[in-house]
Amino acid sequence: MHLGRVSIIGVGLLGGSLGLALRRRGLADEVVGVGHRDSTLKEAARRGAIDRFTLDAAEGVAGADLVVLATPVGLFGPLMAQAAPALADGCLITDVGSTKRAVLEAVLPHVPDGCRFVGSHPLAGSEARGIAAADVDLYGGATVLVVPTPRSDDAALERVERLWQALGSRTRRIDAETHDRLLAGTSHLPHLVAAALVNALGDGADALVASGFLDTTRIASGDPALWRDIFMTNADELLAALDRFEATLGAMRSALSDRDAEAVRRLLDEAKRRRDAMLGSR
Amino acid sequence: MHLGRVSIIGVGLLGGSLGLALRRRGLADEVVGVGHRDSTLKEAARRGAIDRFTLDAAEGVAGADLVVLATPVGLFGPLMAQAAPALADGCLITDVGSTKRAVLEAVLPHVPDGCRFVGSHPLAGSEARGIAAADVDLYGGATVLVVPTPRSDDAALERVERLWQALGSRTRRIDAETHDRLLAGTSHLPHLVAAALVNALGDGADALVASGFLDTTRIASGDPALWRDIFMTNADELLAALDRFEATLGAMRSALSDRDAEAVRRLLDEAKRRRDAMLGSR
Repeated sequence: MHLGRVSIIGVGLLGGSLGLALRRRGLADEVVGVGHRDSTLKEAARRGAIDRFTLDAAEGVAGADLVVLATPVGLFGPLMAQAAPALADGCLITDVGSTKRAVLEAVLPHVPDGCRFVGSHPLAGSEARGIAAADVDLYGGATVLVVPTPRSDDAALERVERLWQALGSRTRRIDAETHDRLLAGTSHLPHLVAAALVNALGDGADALVASGFLDTTRIASGDPALWRDIFMTNADELLAALDRFEATLGAMRSALSDRDAEAVRRLLDEAKRRRDAMLGSR
Repeated sequence: MHLGRVSIIGVGLLGGSLGLALRRRGLADEVVGVGHRDSTLKEAARRGAIDRFTLDAAEGVAGADLVVLATPVGLFGPLMAQAAPALADGCLITDVGSTKRAVLEAVLPHVPDGCRFVGSHPLAGSEARGIAAADVDLYGGATVLVVPTPRSDDAALERVERLWQALGSRTRRIDAETHDRLLAGTSHLPHLVAAALVNALGDGADALVASGFLDTTRIASGDPALWRDIFMTNADELLAALDRFEATLGAMRSALSDRDAEAVRRLLDEAKRRRDAMLGSR
């Protein structure tokens, strides 16, 4: 696996970590950073995540073998529209976004005929953000979901899989619809719920929180603009996941209202067994 | 701060850690463990959490200056009833339970005239359980909520506070009603929500969970019997906390249903600011 020029649009936590890992492992001849703030790009260059940078998406993708979209997902469409005229024939494009159907809708119309687009979603990251949080090992041991699109083919899918594997990730193919449905439950709903838990705390309670509360709500410290984009680009599936959650929450409420200790125990047992099995299979 | 005999009823994570810390710091002449399983008690003695043990609560508390209830809260009443005839005059009793009003109702009728009962709730612990998870440093840096009761006085409250402080904890006095109301939001509701999140996962989703989901649901791996007791002994306040949560969840749902990106962002901002402030003040 070796690439010529790689352009990373958005050099925050995910994009910056990708640049660090590509350069550390010598997987690309050159890594170009594209962003909207000079200071962020300078910091990314100083940290060694990129070789050079530009504020202009078209300039940044010129001559690239691989372009990676790593901004908040709401910007993918406009950025691809800006970059498209400059994309080299044969260019491979991927992204690191947390939703897929809306991303494909926004991006695919701008992908030139000679280029391929494969979706990627690395299940890595944290509530931290920005180049300051970038980590050369972020993708090591992570699962990366790889999403075929109407503008991908086997060769493009395999190249993207080999890229992530070269960074130490496991890859797993999943179609965009299944991705959005399952990730609504495993990622987007937990974020919504964590925020709602914080917002529901009564007066005087903040001083009494301990590690349980702080862990349960860790992701609520994530970047609100980033997560707004994720929520808005997967709103249907997130609302469906919220319906399922309201049902399991309702089962808990009924058991409590009925003071049915055995039913409470059964529901807690079910959750513990299932979560422990997830841990066990990792 | 020095104690003669301390009896710990229940030598799991909290009771075992207390015994380890008391003995390591030389704060008691003798630590007696009371339990219902010989193997657990032997393991607690082997690890150095207790000097000796018995399966009989009355035998275990005889001659004790301090008795600590550290079983699941549902057992406090029956155990106090068994232990009461053997309690020495002047004995101080406390507990490490996660709820307080129901505990006081169950325990106080059995507290002999010559004894005092002060509630304690160390905001420490984890989803792990049992003597195997006991940790001599569990209480270091933790906050312990100290709860006055109709059977406490200033001297008893101060002795209990000095005990926890001698183990490196900060103490904070709080009445039983306020305790149960606030802890319903900071601890019991997050546990219920974490379990409901796991139970709401769709088929095929388990393999896609990452650190966000696992952290958000960490506490759902806690002991179901222990948490059933906590839920059942604070059901009114937990249901009230659930009502508040349903309201903030409903605000999220409305914003999403309306595809109101600005409202989504505002709700996420509110949660992030509040949680970040909690972290900042620790």
